[in-house]
Amino acid sequence: MDIEALKRELDGIRIEDNPAIVQQRSRDFYWYSPVLKRQLEHVTGDLIVSPKDEAEVVRVLAACFSHGVPVTPRGTGTGNYGQAMPLSGGVVLSLAEMNEVRAIAPGRVVCGPGAILADIDRATKAHSAQELRLHPSTYNTASIGGFIAGGSGGVGSINFGGLRDFGNVIRLRVVTMEADPKVLELSGEDLHKVTHAYGTNGIITEVEMPLAAAYDWVDVIVGFDRFSDAARYGNALACQDGILTKLITPVAAPAPWLYFKRHQKFLHEGLSVVVCMVAPHALDAFRAFTRRERGKVIFDASLVEDRKGLPPAYELAWNHTTLRALRVDPSITYLQSLYPFPHQLDLVERVDGLFPEVTSHLEFVRFDGNITCFGLPLVKFTTEQRLDEIVRLYEDNGCPIFNPHRYTLEEGGMKQTDEIQLAFKRRADPQGLLNPGKMIAWENPGYDYRSGKTFLFKGLER
Amino acid sequence: MDIEALKRELDGIRIEDNPAIVQQRSRDFYWYSPVLKRQLEHVTGDLIVSPKDEAEVVRVLAACFSHGVPVTPRGTGTGNYGQAMPLSGGVVLSLAEMNEVRAIAPGRVVCGPGAILADIDRATKAHSAQELRLHPSTYNTASIGGFIAGGSGGVGSINFGGLRDFGNVIRLRVVTMEADPKVLELSGEDLHKVTHAYGTNGIITEVEMPLAAAYDWVDVIVGFDRFSDAARYGNALACQDGILTKLITPVAAPAPWLYFKRHQKFLHEGLSVVVCMVAPHALDAFRAFTRRERGKVIFDASLVEDRKGLPPAYELAWNHTTLRALRVDPSITYLQSLYPFPHQLDLVERVDGLFPEVTSHLEFVRFDGNITCFGLPLVKFTTEQRLDEIVRLYEDNGCPIFNPHRYTLEEGGMKQTDEIQLAFKRRADPQGLLNPGKMIAWENPGYDYRSGKTFLFKGLER
Repeated sequence: MDIEALKRELDGIRIEDNPAIVQQRSRDFYWYSPVLKRQLEHVTGDLIVSPKDEAEVVRVLAACFSHGVPVTPRGTGTGNYGQAMPLSGGVVLSLAEMNEVRAIAPGRVVCGPGAILADIDRATKAHSAQELRLHPSTYNTASIGGFIAGGSGGVGSINFGGLRDFGNVIRLRVVTMEADPKVLELSGEDLHKVTHAYGTNGIITEVEMPLAAAYDWVDVIVGFDRFSDAARYGNALACQDGILTKLITPVAAPAPWLYFKRHQKFLHEGLSVVVCMVAPHALDAFRAFTRRERGKVIFDASLVEDRKGLPPAYELAWNHTTLRALRVDPSITYLQSLYPFPHQLDLVERVDGLFPEVTSHLEFVRFDGNITCFGLPLVKFTTEQRLDEIVRLYEDNGCPIFNPHRYTLEEGGMKQTDEIQLAFKRRADPQGLLNPGKMIAWENPGYDYRSGKTFLFKGLER
Repeated sequence: MDIEALKRELDGIRIEDNPAIVQQRSRDFYWYSPVLKRQLEHVTGDLIVSPKDEAEVVRVLAACFSHGVPVTPRGTGTGNYGQAMPLSGGVVLSLAEMNEVRAIAPGRVVCGPGAILADIDRATKAHSAQELRLHPSTYNTASIGGFIAGGSGGVGSINFGGLRDFGNVIRLRVVTMEADPKVLELSGEDLHKVTHAYGTNGIITEVEMPLAAAYDWVDVIVGFDRFSDAARYGNALACQDGILTKLITPVAAPAPWLYFKRHQKFLHEGLSVVVCMVAPHALDAFRAFTRRERGKVIFDASLVEDRKGLPPAYELAWNHTTLRALRVDPSITYLQSLYPFPHQLDLVERVDGLFPEVTSHLEFVRFDGNITCFGLPLVKFTTEQRLDEIVRLYEDNGCPIFNPHRYTLEEGGMKQTDEIQLAFKRRADPQGLLNPGKMIAWENPGYDYRSGKTFLFKGLER
């Protein structure tokens, strides 16, 4: 890699080559996983390049292609799986500057890939009381392009399912990695080619996302003496078609008391909770339903006058639950499980209960038209072997694990080749220069996902 | 009943006593049912009273109470079960004049009971791009109070379930029928006391309803050679959490060709269809999904320039399907069935298929958090005995029938006493003067719903 020659060719485009800064911006929240921490800690790019528009992206990709320099795209680096970490070095392509909100219409927003989710919502709310359908718990820091390329759902999935479901992304502009990069517009089923592909097969330069009505969501926490009651309540609430919520998150005792420090005065050690976001106009119905289900509202933001210092509900949920636990107890890590419908409640009790070191944390979602839940169970980490054993037992019991301790698309996902993404990569990145090492199907087409081993990208061999 | 004395007491309140007009306004669309047509044709009130505000409602009720005159409330008379027909004569209380839209806020509208659904939406759309969550196919003529008191769901139920689900009505003001009528505000679980009670236990004088984001819904019709494929497609579309629709209505051949006259040029005799309303920003995804499912879009309002004379999609659906069939073939009537989740598709095929005189018509909805469908099968009527036999066979096969050939709450509903409504009626209408004959539990507490007989209100005996 002739980085110096590349730099000369990128004259006029913003570049950062201070090694300390480059290393810092070559990382994401991979350290949530002790496994990824060990594997990826040394990873760094050679150069951060920050194009300000699509024309500059095209220039960067053409130059990198001609020099054979890998390019790993990055939004704000809030992923947890090393999605944006440059395993083969080279250029980290920061899309953070391309953060304009370009157009807002009923049900739609068009923006640059680097726009921060909360900033998009501020613009769409001010324009027409609209907001994004889905966001991760890193709402205030994550970029929309990074969310699409590296995320899968989150807050709002209780209403709209996942990011890869038809309709949850409207359109993407994508630049290919070729001598003469092409700009493609993708919509409909073509979106699947690049959503959740970690930027391995094209660089997103514009997104068009669906919007929903924006409300001043009210954070409410409901307490239960038994976690099974909390889970059952969460499931029943999610099945209330007329009660508009945006988040339904059961967390088992003692995690709320131990880790939700700023809410501690509302909690006690034995309390399991369900963290909710409720539309203001649904509050009466929510309260009546909760009373009927014998849930105890222990926190209702609409009734608590002094909320200073309290994080929003979504920062107690999804991967922020893990973050809060990690801050208190660095030996905590997590898994991501699906409890398939219609057996979700039984499976939670049975499978989470197999492991003394697991504390249940659920996220209710719509999934293929049904209400079910994902789990982000907190796991007290001992060894990688034990973690793998836990993963295996979840899967043996019928709960797929989306393993957050793997940096490849396949191992963190469906454990099989995504033929559509692979075919698209052949066209869009024929030299395999985009985010190398993340798509096993590309690196090692004959890889056996049932080997029980972890894929090791050759670029990481030391 | 001393109607003349009552009239004097109502001085200053708008009254109509022309017998022809009174009879006309004592009717609803009960004639969809040949059974109700026979039973109720002679029903008429003595007087139409049209209060202009709540104070006048209170005056009317007090006066009627003191004279022992029955009061049957009425919106615009678009019901199908004689809900608003005064079985014991007396006053028909028209709430049509109380049609003001009083307040609009994010997620909420407050209005009088007589406000027409389409008029409410015109106001809320102009105010803040919002619209009602649910409406019947009689959107352009039905009143909100009548919908709440006599309806159960409709267009939009695919997103929000039914009217009686928590959250689909926010608040009601209700006037009781006593010497000194009380004005009550009901919310939360108390709403159940008066929703879908046909006005038997209080007169609604104000409603507060939840709103959703308003869109310029696009009418699309998808065609299939086999009805089972249409039903399967409708179910799969309903399970697409990211594709925002408001209506998913499969109708079996040859009904579309025979009865959707204005759309006939898009149809042919053997074509079964799925009538949809799709949000504009979901169209790309809808089309991609429909292609994948091998559905053929035979009508897309966004691509048809001359739509003059074409009714909106919702006027092909719910009970407008029946109406269109009736207009062509007066021997057609219908039933209302539920195909319980998760066996809805099998049940449709099995149960509708039992009867040569039944043509399938489904409406996909959310029901307790699941996607399933109601049926409004078109039935070629021969005799009441045969109709009862069909009802029995539906129920024997596990498909509850909400019988539209009965004028009582119980027989058209759950075939059991609604203890909450009955208890509330004891307080709110101690003399049983509100819409007599509609609540069996009141008229005949010992009634045996399993007798197989039809309840005959004594006031209808001749």
